This record gives sequence, C-alpha cells and structure tokens, in this order.
Amino acid sequence: MAKRFRHAAIVGKFQARGIRPVLEDIAHFLAQQGLDVSLERETALNTGITEFPSLSTDELGAQCDLAVVVGGDGTMLGFAREMARFGVPLVGINQGRLGFVTDIAIDQYRETLMPMLAGDFEREHRSMLEGCVWRDEHCIFEALAMNDVVVSRGGTSGMVELKVDVGDEFVANFRADGLIIGSPTGSTAYALSAGGPILHPSIAGWVVVPIASHTLSNRPIVLPDTGTVSVEIVAGRDVSVNFDMQSLASLLHGDRITVRRSEHQVCFLHPRGWSYYATLRRKLRWNEGVS
Amino acid sequence: MAKRFRHAAIVGKFQARGIRPVLEDIAHFLAQQGLDVSLERETALNTGITEFPSLSTDELGAQCDLAVVVGGDGTMLGFAREMARFGVPLVGINQGRLGFVTDIAIDQYRETLMPMLAGDFEREHRSMLEGCVWRDEHCIFEALAMNDVVVSRGGTSGMVELKVDVGDEFVANFRADGLIIGSPTGSTAYALSAGGPILHPSIAGWVVVPIASHTLSNRPIVLPDTGTVSVEIVAGRDVSVNFDMQSLASLLHGDRITVRRSEHQVCFLHPRGWSYYATLRRKLRWNEGVS
Amino acid sequence: MAKRFRHAAIVGKFQARGIRPVLEDIAHFLAQQGLDVSLERETALNTGITEFPSLSTDELGAQCDLAVVVGGDGTMLGFAREMARFGVPLVGINQGRLGFVTDIAIDQYRETLMPMLAGDFEREHRSMLEGCVWRDEHCIFEALAMNDVVVSRGGTSGMVELKVDVGDEFVANFRADGLIIGSPTGSTAYALSAGGPILHPSIAGWVVVPIASHTLSNRPIVLPDTGTVSVEIVAGRDVSVNFDMQSLASLLHGDRITVRRSEHQVCFLHPRGWSYYATLRRKLRWNEGVS
Amino acid sequence: MAKRFRHAAIVGKFQARGIRPVLEDIAHFLAQQGLDVSLERETALNTGITEFPSLSTDELGAQCDLAVVVGGDGTMLGFAREMARFGVPLVGINQGRLGFVTDIAIDQYRETLMPMLAGDFEREHRSMLEGCVWRDEHCIFEALAMNDVVVSRGGTSGMVELKVDVGDEFVANFRADGLIIGSPTGSTAYALSAGGPILHPSIAGWVVVPIASHTLSNRPIVLPDTGTVSVEIVAGRDVSVNFDMQSLASLLHGDRITVRRSEHQVCFLHPRGWSYYATLRRKLRWNEGVS
Repeated sequence: MAKRFRHAAIVGKFQARGIRPVLEDIAHFLAQQGLDVSLERETALNTGITEFPSLSTDELGAQCDLAVVVGGDGTMLGFAREMARFGVPLVGINQGRLGFVTDIAIDQYRETLMPMLAGDFEREHRSMLEGCVWRDEHCIFEALAMNDVVVSRGGTSGMVELKVDVGDEFVANFRADGLIIGSPTGSTAYALSAGGPILHPSIAGWVVVPIASHTLSNRPIVLPDTGTVSVEIVAGRDVSVNFDMQSLASLLHGDRITVRRSEHQVCFLHPRGWSYYATLRRKLRWNEGVS
Repeated sequence: MAKRFRHAAIVGKFQARGIRPVLEDIAHFLAQQGLDVSLERETALNTGITEFPSLSTDELGAQCDLAVVVGGDGTMLGFAREMARFGVPLVGINQGRLGFVTDIAIDQYRETLMPMLAGDFEREHRSMLEGCVWRDEHCIFEALAMNDVVVSRGGTSGMVELKVDVGDEFVANFRADGLIIGSPTGSTAYALSAGGPILHPSIAGWVVVPIASHTLSNRPIVLPDTGTVSVEIVAGRDVSVNFDMQSLASLLHGDRITVRRSEHQVCFLHPRGWSYYATLRRKLRWNEGVS
Repeated sequence: MAKRFRHAAIVGKFQARGIRPVLEDIAHFLAQQGLDVSLERETALNTGITEFPSLSTDELGAQCDLAVVVGGDGTMLGFAREMARFGVPLVGINQGRLGFVTDIAIDQYRETLMPMLAGDFEREHRSMLEGCVWRDEHCIFEALAMNDVVVSRGGTSGMVELKVDVGDEFVANFRADGLIIGSPTGSTAYALSAGGPILHPSIAGWVVVPIASHTLSNRPIVLPDTGTVSVEIVAGRDVSVNFDMQSLASLLHGDRITVRRSEHQVCFLHPRGWSYYATLRRKLRWNEGVS
Repeated sequence: MAKRFRHAAIVGKFQARGIRPVLEDIAHFLAQQGLDVSLERETALNTGITEFPSLSTDELGAQCDLAVVVGGDGTMLGFAREMARFGVPLVGINQGRLGFVTDIAIDQYRETLMPMLAGDFEREHRSMLEGCVWRDEHCIFEALAMNDVVVSRGGTSGMVELKVDVGDEFVANFRADGLIIGSPTGSTAYALSAGGPILHPSIAGWVVVPIASHTLSNRPIVLPDTGTVSVEIVAGRDVSVNFDMQSLASLLHGDRITVRRSEHQVCFLHPRGWSYYATLRRKLRWNEGVS
C-alpha cells in the first residue's frame, strides 16, 4: 500500500497531567506505521520527550504533511491557525470529553487512525478570519482567528458604540457590551452564548452578534465573507479586541478593526463516517431534552 | 436614448382602498415613457380598469421585461414567485409604510422610476425555496416559497416531532411547536420572530429555526442551500405545512417535506443607491434604540 | 410515635407498562405503615387492582390526608389540580427520569417515604391559575391550570392579535403565534421553550410570554398575580385556548379569557433536604455545560 | 385648599445645555405655588443659581417633602437612591425623550404639576438593592442600587465563574461574561439587553440574568427578594462589580457580593392617569411593530 502520509507533527496540551506517556505512545504508534515523527518544540521542551526530533512551528509546517494534535479544541484551534498557511491537515485526539474539532477518543486512537493513515478519512475545510487594527491609517496589530474577533467594553465601563461597515456599505452603529464576528467554526463557541445561530462550516459567511445589545432589534446577522467587515470604535472606555485568545487592549476612539477571509483555510481530517451534525447533536445534547 | 425596457406588467393589491386611480396613474406614466403596458388579469378585473390589455400571469411572464408591483411586501412576494421562472425583474411601489422589498414611495414614484427606466438601478437576486410533500413515495403537493416553508403543530395539539436530514445526513429530531426553513428573504419575516438571525441575501443558505423548541440548545442553524433539506413528520396531531401562505393541512406521520433551492431566482430592481443595510436599519428601527 | 397521616390515596399513570405490581407494592407498603389506602377509581379500573377500596377523585379529596402519585409530572399536575380544593398534600414517585415535581425514584421509595410518613418532609405550595372564557358576557368555559393558560393560532393560520389587560389597565396588543400565561410551576414548561424566565415558586406572579412575537421588543413580562389578567381575541382564525391540557377551540373575535389566582393552592411534600434549585440544576443540566 | 407639600428640593442634570433658565423657571413656579424651594448644592454650584438656598443631599432629605428632578432616568435614579432613606417622594421632569421614570415633559410641566401639588397624583414605590462586597469576612464596599448589581469579567479576559446562593441554598455556578441581579426597575435596563424579562414594579423579586452564559440552559431566573442573594467569585481575571454606576474593580477569587432588599424604598409621584404599561408601550415601541 502506498503511504498516504510521510511525516507527522505531534503537538500536545503539555500542561495536561500525564500527557507525556500518551504523546510517547502516539509517537511510537505513528513511527511504527512508517511515518517520520517530529514533536512541536514547546511540547518537547515541556514534556521532556527527547526521543523524537523537535521542530519549531514553521519547520513543522514546511516539512510535515500531517499534524496530530493531542488536547482539546483550544489546543487544536491554536495550532491549526499556525498550520493554515502551510496547508498541513490536522487530526485531533482528545483526552477528555470530545470536542467540536477534536473527535478521536484517546482510548480508540489506534483503530481510528489506522485507516485514516491509509487514506480513508473525511476531509473538511474551515475558513479563517484575518484581522487588522488600524490607528491613524497604520495597521498596529494583525492576527488570524479561527473562532472569532471580539470587540469588548472594559469590565467597569458602560456600553461601547461600534460602527460597522461591509466594504463601503454602512451596516449600523451597535451600542452593546461588545460585538462578535464569528466564523462558522466560532459560531458554536462564544457567539452561540451571545445568542448567535449555528453556521454550517460550508457557509461562506460570518455571523455578527452584538453582546447584550441596547437596541432589542439588533439581532445576529450573517454577512457574506467576500467583503471586508470594518468595526470602528465610536464610543466607550477601555475597549479591547480579541482575536481568538490574542488580545489588544486600550483601543482608542477612531480605531478601526478590519476583518476579511484569510486566503488560507484549515484542513481537518476526520474518521470516515464523521458527521458535523453528529458532533452538534453530541456537543449540544440535542437528544437528551430538558425534561 | 436606447430604451431599457419594452413592456411593463402592472399588478396591484386590488383590495386596497383607492388603488384604481393610483394604478391608472402609474400605467399612464409608463405608457408616456414609451412602454407597452399590460395589467395582470385579476388586478384588471377587480379594479375595473379596461384601458390597458389584461393578461394572465403566464402571458405577462412570457411577454413583459419589467413588472411593477403596487402594494406591500406580501403582494410583491406572491407575484415575484410567479415571475421567477420567466426571469422578469420587479420593482415595488408601496402605498403605505415601505417594506423590505417594496421600497419606492407612492408619492415619489415618478422621479424614482424615471432613471430606473433608463437603466440606472441596482439589480438584486434572491433565492427561492422549492418544496414538495411526499406521501408513500408520491409527491402530493409542490410549491415555491420566497420566504419560508413552515411545518406547524395544530392549534390545540402539543408539540410535533420532526426529523431533519440534509442530503443523506441526519441533522436532528426537533420537538417543538414547529420548524421554519427560511430563505435570506424570509429571515427578516417569521423566522426573525421565532428567534432566527438575519441572513444577507447573498448568503447561499437557509436558516432552520425551531419554534418554541423543547430542547433549549436546539438553536437556529444556517444550512447550505446546495443540498436537499428533508423534514419528516415523526409525531404530532393536525400537522400542517405552509409554503409562504399556501397551506397543506392534515399531514400524516411519515409524510416528508423536501426543500431545495429553486433553479430560478427572483430579480428585484432598486433605485440607484439602494442599500440592503439601510432597509434593515429602517425596518428594524436600529437607529432609535429602546430608550 | 403519633401517626402523621391516616389515609393515603394512590393514583398511577395506569397506561405505563408494568405499573400494576408497582402500585400494589406501594399500597402494601403504605398499609404496613398503618395507613388506610384507597385507589383512585380510574387507576383501579385500568390496572385491575381490587385489593384496596377504589374511590372517585372527590371521595379521595374528602377522605384522604395524603396522595401518592406514581408517574411523571403530567400525571402529578393533573391530579394535583383535582386535589387542590381539598388541600390534600401530594408526593410523587417517578418510574422514569425524575421530574420537576415528581422527585422520588421508584427504587428508593421505601427509605424515602418512611421518614416523610413520620412527619419529616419539606412542604411546598404552588399557586394555580383559574381561567374563564367569556362570550357575550357569559362564561362558556372554566378551568384550573397548574402550568399555564395558552392562547394559540390555528395550525394553518397566520398570527393572532390579542389584547391584554390587567385589572382595568391596558397592557398591550400582542401579535404573535400565541400567548402563554404561566405560573411559577409552568415557567419551566412551555413558557421556557418560548423564551420566558424561570420563576421561583414563591414569586407571586405570572409570566406572560408571547410566542414568536411579531414585535421584537414584546419580551416576556412578569405580572403580579393579584389582579385579573384578561386576553381578548382581536384577530386571527381558528384561535384556541388551552388550560394545561384541556382545550377549547374555535374562539371568536371578541371572546375574552380571564385568568386569576385560584383561592386554592397545591401542596407538595418533598423529602427532607429537597431543594428547588437542585431540581433546576438536574433538570436543566446546569452542571454539564455545552462543551 | 390645604397645601399638600411644603418644601421642594430641585436637582438638575447640570451638564445639560441650557438647563439654568429651565431650573429657575421651575423654581419660581414652585415658589409661586407657595412652596419653599431649595436647590441641591451641586446643581446650584454648577449652574450658578443663587436666588434660592442650596442644601446638601442630606439637608434636602431632612427638610424637604418633595423632590423635583430635572433630567433623564439616570439623574433621577441617582438622586432617588439618595432620598430613599428619607422617604422624600420624587417627580421627574424630562427635557428630552421621556424616560421610564421621568415622565413629565418640560413643555407641559406647569399644567401637569399643578394638580399634583394639590394632591392629585399616583404614588408608586420601587424596591432597592442593598449590596455589600465581602473579603475575608469583612465588608469592603457597600452601596445601594435602584437598577442592578452587575458582576463582570475584565475586557480582555475570558469567562467568569460565579457561585450563586440564596440564603443558605445553593442555586448554581454560572460561567458567563457576568451576572446581573436586577430590580423590577432595572429589569427594563441592562437586564433586558442581556435577555431578561420585564418585572412589574410590584413583583417582590429580583431577576438574575447571566450575560452570554456558556451553558445555554442557564436562563434568566426570578428570585424572591426576601432572602439574601450571594455571588462568589470562583474563577476569572479582572472581575469587577457595579452597583448602578458605582464600580469596584479587581475583585479576588473568594470575594463575595451579597445583595438584599433595602429596608427603604423609593417613592415616585406620577400624574393622575399614569400607567406603568403605557410607559412600557411608549419606551419599547410596542405599538409600532417591526414592519
């Protein structure tokens, strides 16, 4: 059988208790399947695993054709963001309760990965947000986000007022605790808590959700991801912006955040038979009801 | 100047008080601009206007290259559905408060239509839902909908249970008062009342909104419009389905409603400078706030 | 030890599979504790249990000082409504997943009931809605409800319009699929599905929740239960009203439903240490999260 | 006619443009009606009005039997909080759009106040929240709130986790952006934006609303105002608490905010015929609809 993959990167949530033997186990398994195996540098340093080469994120991106992430959705999304421009596909092994995008249980990873390594998998692409913060015509901060870009009021401040445009069209001024621009991937995260809908990953759009909007009719809106969404700080103190977990605080009035679809997208590999809807049903407990 | 349009259909909300002189006025105006003018048959019969030829909907579709609808959004959506397979573009003149898609005020129609007739307009396309009700493998009802397909419990009945699939993927069983499958156009109608998001018209998706869902995590979901959405009646009494306003009552357990994107789409013409977002701001009173 | 109770009624969800031996078991247990035991007539007839006297609901109400309900919340609420005017306290034994008000598991009923029969229990009171439908100044229908009074549109009809007053104060006209007037007990039932808040049972109020309200700012409102709430049918076809599960269909324009607090209240007995909030946490899965 | 009031306090939103002549006008009017008139000290200092005695808030509370507030709801709620322990009733004159509790239009204040000064008015009482922040068994901050007590995450932080108890009963741990404990007065303010219901002012309860709750079933809950609600900071960074607009930042894990009903309540006087529901209809634009 022709090998489907040649060189696997392993990255782990190294803070997790007892992760070292788990990672070693997975690394050996992949090596036994004939793959070169490299560990992400921070993972290697923090777990003390020296048996396999350790590479920087960029080196992994350049050399690997598969990334195995061991952890939860947070670990996966962080590393997926790094791998996107290299186009390296990712699989997620979860030590705890399965996540939205980390769907292989640790105790079944061998029998699950085996056919996937042979080429039997579902490939799924996810769009990413590319954001920039502008002050006086200069971009003072740039970042990618898989889930969302969030503009927030300060903790002890009142509302912010945000002016939203799409391309050169004015959408509205939002007075709220903040505003979430979420990708389909992010639509089941913070945006869902704030009242947004679920977007299927194939929807070419962002969901824009005001948080605790002053105007009750300012409902979540799904915008096409073809244009640039722009959010200008009109009023509010201690305003900050978050790209997934990366924050920029102390935004000023007149600062503008622009968000567009990244030219890169993330590629997840799932076991054959994987279903997005099955994941929703499981994560949102749709089959259990309230009473 | 080369004429942009040749033959205009006029259809009016003939139940509206005082509509006859308004329609005559518009018809004369269009004729003065050098267009052939025909009245939709029911409009002609019910208003008693005989000065212009009256044609059936099919004849209008075959012969006209412009339709002028005088009424509210309901009148427009009903006629737009009829014109879709003919590709006739529509403009809407509203006698009352402007609608989402009828955006020319009656007292400004001349100065607004004049440049539009010369070719200066914004063209906008809207997707349509094509639905079918299946019983024992037979399609017992077919209809198009511009807004939504709604499955509802009977008035004195408890919940319905509905099994939803997309293509051959199972989505979920919904236990609720009913379920709305809304187009972007319908997302600002009933679906909004039931808690759904607003979908920009360019989004290639449907919003699926359970009405008063028993399971609190059964949130609105935006599905791609590329597959067929199927809704099967699993439980419930006196279940009915609505395609826009056309109803089929007395659905049975096992009946299945399929919804897919129509190959046709509706084409609206708007005055130059028209903005979808401006319409949202106006209709949803986004600039007025609560207090 | 002085006996706390003298005569227990037993009522069961007689449609449930295998209920007969369960009821017999409970009846014998209660008899062994020195109580007189009577079966509710329908329960006796449908299960064929003849070993104990069977009495009508009214006879049970007049003679018993305790009612043991075996079933789910629906069975309990139905029987509790009947017992309210007699002031007979109720305990609920649940064969399936525990309910909001049936909180004793079938496999632990002996050790749970034993101290309760000795007087060691938590007593809790619930308010009830007393409703009346008026046509031409005549009351054409009267009923009690523990959960809610619901006015609904017909299945194939559009919105209803309902005029709501409290006492002689006009509240608002609601255009919606319908309107729920829920007691604190009902606030975790249908009203919750329709977007209402949870009301602690000690709150002296009703929650009024429009279902899929056309006006987005028509949010749920908690009204004092001291006045009479009146709902008049202003517009809509095939309008019906439900008092818990008892329906009256074919309401006419001008018909008026009045709701006031019943002079009676239901008395539930819970095991010592029972907590309303623990029930909420369990039923609404508050400790499990989404992801 | 016996004088109903003897000594009126006047307080104004002194930052408002052109407020001085308005306040002078009202003061003269009240003096003409035979009342002693005193200005609140800050109002006098900032407007430069010296014609009338100026008194501190405490002096006004001790001496006056009526307070006339000229400004919006914010000005009113701030001063009402100060007057509550003195029991001085308040009327509100609004220069802009009428508020929830400032309901006399500036251009009609004479004809509206005249009968009120003669005793013809509606008296309405509002409950207040009394809050305390505890650290290591010491109360480190105390405040009253008319609207709400809000615990919030920091702007760049993730969720907070808050443990809520009522009396000695555990309610739940909430993981969210924050938590609002709102009075009936506050139920139409921030709590409404965050998804809470409207509470009629006579409801003896608080509405507890999690902001963007992680757990979708953590719905707003209405708790009785007879016990003490306690909120403990379990997790989160930069957590702060707000009592109306007064903030305390940098809360620590283990800090606890307790909220109970103040022994004082605010007394508003409204023109005869005033209706709480009419105010709701006006402020929430219930009669205008979406489309």
